Amino acid sequence: MPVQFGDDVSAFETEKGKLVILKTDMLVDRTDVPPRMTLRQAARKAVVMNVSDFAAKGVKPVAALVALGLPRGIAKGNVEEIGAGLNDGAHEYGTYIIGGDTGEASDLVIAVSLFGLAAKGTLMLRSGAKSGNLVGVTGLFGKTSAGLRILVKDLKTPKSIRKTLIDSVLMPTARLKEGLALAGTGAVTASIDSSDGLAWSLHEIARSSQVGICIDSLPTAEPCRTFAISNKLDLAELTLYGGEEYELVLTVKPGMWKRAQEAVENVGGSLFKIGKVTSRKSVVLTNRGKRIPIDARGYEHFMSQ
Amino acid sequence: MPVQFGDDVSAFETEKGKLVILKTDMLVDRTDVPPRMTLRQAARKAVVMNVSDFAAKGVKPVAALVALGLPRGIAKGNVEEIGAGLNDGAHEYGTYIIGGDTGEASDLVIAVSLFGLAAKGTLMLRSGAKSGNLVGVTGLFGKTSAGLRILVKDLKTPKSIRKTLIDSVLMPTARLKEGLALAGTGAVTASIDSSDGLAWSLHEIARSSQVGICIDSLPTAEPCRTFAISNKLDLAELTLYGGEEYELVLTVKPGMWKRAQEAVENVGGSLFKIGKVTSRKSVVLTNRGKRIPIDARGYEHFMSQ
Repeated sequence: MPVQFGDDVSAFETEKGKLVILKTDMLVDRTDVPPRMTLRQAARKAVVMNVSDFAAKGVKPVAALVALGLPRGIAKGNVEEIGAGLNDGAHEYGTYIIGGDTGEASDLVIAVSLFGLAAKGTLMLRSGAKSGNLVGVTGLFGKTSAGLRILVKDLKTPKSIRKTLIDSVLMPTARLKEGLALAGTGAVTASIDSSDGLAWSLHEIARSSQVGICIDSLPTAEPCRTFAISNKLDLAELTLYGGEEYELVLTVKPGMWKRAQEAVENVGGSLFKIGKVTSRKSVVLTNRGKRIPIDARGYEHFMSQ
Repeated sequence: MPVQFGDDVSAFETEKGKLVILKTDMLVDRTDVPPRMTLRQAARKAVVMNVSDFAAKGVKPVAALVALGLPRGIAKGNVEEIGAGLNDGAHEYGTYIIGGDTGEASDLVIAVSLFGLAAKGTLMLRSGAKSGNLVGVTGLFGKTSAGLRILVKDLKTPKSIRKTLIDSVLMPTARLKEGLALAGTGAVTASIDSSDGLAWSLHEIARSSQVGICIDSLPTAEPCRTFAISNKLDLAELTLYGGEEYELVLTVKPGMWKRAQEAVENVGGSLFKIGKVTSRKSVVLTNRGKRIPIDARGYEHFMSQ
């Protein structure tokens, strides 16, 4: 198999060296659609969360299929909103919906399947990290942790950052152009998206690649820091164990860091260095000389927050 | 687009003449899993209903993805049963599960996506029926109508046919080998599966191909006839408007009927002639010189029965 079971996408070799890339993921309103997210945003998110997995592998999504479970008696206007959101997501990432099916369900269920093409050997898998590689991320973390706490628990926050934090949850972005640019450099040895939280992503790379990871700075987004202070919340908790945050978490050959960073910046993105891959098989954060273990726990869904 | 929106599968042309075929369909326990169907059978059915669409197009399924929505707290044994059923379905049709995702939902939701390859021009679409073509089916109808009435409404039936009728619902079969054999003949001008009922399938071919269809004999399966008599039920209703019956409904060039029939019989199947395609745009059943309209209504799900 060109891609191991459990990686972000599946692959099938159709001809020598040519891969068909497939991915399916299901959004369920009860667990994946927080308060105040519109149906249109929810449907868009169902596409974005699949595109993010393609981004992490460096594969352009070509077409999408949608299986829709709709509660009995749903209004026509609501179905149209869902259709509009699916198209929003598809168009934003240069793909389109080529088919699908609808049925009846208790929840609103949106199962998106993505299809793409890739050359064997260009995929950024979870399993290639080597000791000495640098660990990079395409953005800073914690905005969605904060945003979810505002939406679900109604936590207070300064007005100046409130919209940024909420929008990070309602209108998430997949790092597709960054992923495609990085795949072209040959600099990346392992990659995953951070939809289950930064800590989980680091542990997944470590486990799949049989290595450890040492993070030397907590990559917290500034608005999350402000939110943490004003609500007396733990910064590491918000940064490491959030989720529904679609950054890429990558390991990069040290001699090619600059090249990787330039590739990302050329498409308007950022690449932040946060640590390095170690041979010692643990995932830790160093802080003033102390090694603090990072738990292998991941984001579940907003109802558990 | 190589295949019109609304046909049984979607297709994408990767290189000149080469198509990737994709399909997704969702099974929801509340509406698609009748009483007495085990979880293993339900999961198998989720695969079969997708394979049936591939069968109707004459495309071999290569690999499957599964997005699973599981009720909170489902027992590990139940999840294993579901896994076993998915593998049952995949193995029966020579394909395998290459990936998927799980999440939480109120219902048990199984969204299967299938992937296959085809050469352009070999697909049996819904839209190619021509006036004068013969209408054929790969099996006789009404067993699932009867079986569902036994399972849901507890209708009585002679013991000799009870298991046949119930098994038609619990262990449905996709006509994959028949579909693949037929695609190879070049005899078929339009094709669809009968998952939404025979009447619906006929109307879909008629509508997509801009033709009419005249059925000259009701293709009722013998056990269904017996069931109808013993329960005083309408035979046409059971035969035409049932569903979850995965036969193929096809139109065939009249000069190539024999060839089509032989191709199906060579793989152990049957092909029954039930009528012909007309230029007059109506779908009717003729009975002793009378033309009885066939309604454009389809099977919904067992809870509506």
